[in-house]
Amino acid sequence: MKLLRYGPQGSEKPGLLDKDGQIRDLSGVIADVGGAAISDFSWAEKLDISSLPVIEGSPRLGACVAGTGKFICIGLNYADHAAETGATVPPEPVIFMKATSAIVGPNDNVIIPRGSVATDWEVELGVVIGKKAKYVSEAEALDYVAGYCVINDVSERDFQTKRSGQWTKGKSCDNFGPTGPWLVTKDEVADPQNLKMWLTVNGESKQDGSSKTMVYGVAHVVSYLSQFMSLHAGDIISTGTPPGVGMGFKPPQYLKAGDIIELGIEGLGNQKQTVIAD
Amino acid sequence: MKLLRYGPQGSEKPGLLDKDGQIRDLSGVIADVGGAAISDFSWAEKLDISSLPVIEGSPRLGACVAGTGKFICIGLNYADHAAETGATVPPEPVIFMKATSAIVGPNDNVIIPRGSVATDWEVELGVVIGKKAKYVSEAEALDYVAGYCVINDVSERDFQTKRSGQWTKGKSCDNFGPTGPWLVTKDEVADPQNLKMWLTVNGESKQDGSSKTMVYGVAHVVSYLSQFMSLHAGDIISTGTPPGVGMGFKPPQYLKAGDIIELGIEGLGNQKQTVIAD
Repeated sequence: MKLLRYGPQGSEKPGLLDKDGQIRDLSGVIADVGGAAISDFSWAEKLDISSLPVIEGSPRLGACVAGTGKFICIGLNYADHAAETGATVPPEPVIFMKATSAIVGPNDNVIIPRGSVATDWEVELGVVIGKKAKYVSEAEALDYVAGYCVINDVSERDFQTKRSGQWTKGKSCDNFGPTGPWLVTKDEVADPQNLKMWLTVNGESKQDGSSKTMVYGVAHVVSYLSQFMSLHAGDIISTGTPPGVGMGFKPPQYLKAGDIIELGIEGLGNQKQTVIAD
Repeated sequence: MKLLRYGPQGSEKPGLLDKDGQIRDLSGVIADVGGAAISDFSWAEKLDISSLPVIEGSPRLGACVAGTGKFICIGLNYADHAAETGATVPPEPVIFMKATSAIVGPNDNVIIPRGSVATDWEVELGVVIGKKAKYVSEAEALDYVAGYCVINDVSERDFQTKRSGQWTKGKSCDNFGPTGPWLVTKDEVADPQNLKMWLTVNGESKQDGSSKTMVYGVAHVVSYLSQFMSLHAGDIISTGTPPGVGMGFKPPQYLKAGDIIELGIEGLGNQKQTVIAD
């Protein structure tokens, strides 16, 4: 299934995308696409999709999962990206957090915060946790995954690296976490380590990679994180970005008001954001 | 008011501590001590505390605020503490995040995670946000604060500093965020920058400081954070720890199963935790 949330920010309703590309309303079936619904898919077993109301038009899409408790990111998880930023792949995953208040819909504006001179993009494979995971092995880790989504891990590089330490400062600004369009359940993703990923700015290709060059794969990352903390249904893990971010260009290229960012991952859908100044 | 939450983990009810030290039930007045209740205190204006049901016995206390979206910490915010860890006070606040899944009640067990050799304590003044704050000035910052609480910012120093970067890894383990006993509304805290803070392990004094030696004060920190991200009602800011943490001793002193941690802040109540191994 391709689960989604549609409607105005803060009052989204649950829905899904049917095989004809139509949005169907799930309000009569589940309260929201959140921890409760994605930790127990029994509601989906007898679902007659053709009987669900079709939503006409093109409503705004919200983030594809609601009530996320943790928005955990893996840093420097593609060797080529590490190299372009002047870093090396670390001996074990680098973890940082984005504020959950940064999460927005896939096509909402990217907002350049006041004082920013280095707002950057990062297409990433998002992993949505389906049930509580603690001290799980790599072999069983995918049992705890509900599905996958596209994330733009928007980053302010000066805030991240030149403003007295800890990356979260440059990762947590409002609207820095477009998430969706869909939560694609894992049964529809044959191999999360072989998905094309791409990002353009104003139609010009910037990132053109694949999750197959991810250093620490999804199963490893879920298992690894669960050694440090319980993961809960609805938590999102953003697994790092392939090469082609703005800070990797010489000279660096950063976002400015009016830019259009488009990005997508094979099978997981696309995002399109307009960049505005705050 | 001294607001609190009592009852089994995951099903706490709202309450308050009356002037005689009795817990009174607030279930009939507010749904929970969370964002909705603390962003609009109109429910408290005509409250007849003496008419609220008294809760007998000594129920477990939960974290004093529910539904926290962000658990933001300020690092190295006491000059003496920075010195004991071999660091210097940074030119602007260091921010890191604790996972909200680490939040527990004030007297719940502190759990040493598997593989830990350096689990440490940190008594901290917690600031609970009362309404959305974005780009607020230092002069108006306290208008956005609902109240204060005690936090033990439990930290695993090896995870924090020796496991490939970003402190959140050593700050986010389950039960690493005892919070409470009470959310003390700001009208009862004459000066948040002049509160005695203390912590003992097995009855032996470890931390004995005051928020008056905090480098970046509460108003500065709230204003500063709001330049990077919106703060929302129920968000918690833990403002850093005074000297006396385990890693500052020579040789370092870390927690072991069976240890008893007690800590408190003047006017905000006390916590007492038993340390157990996971």
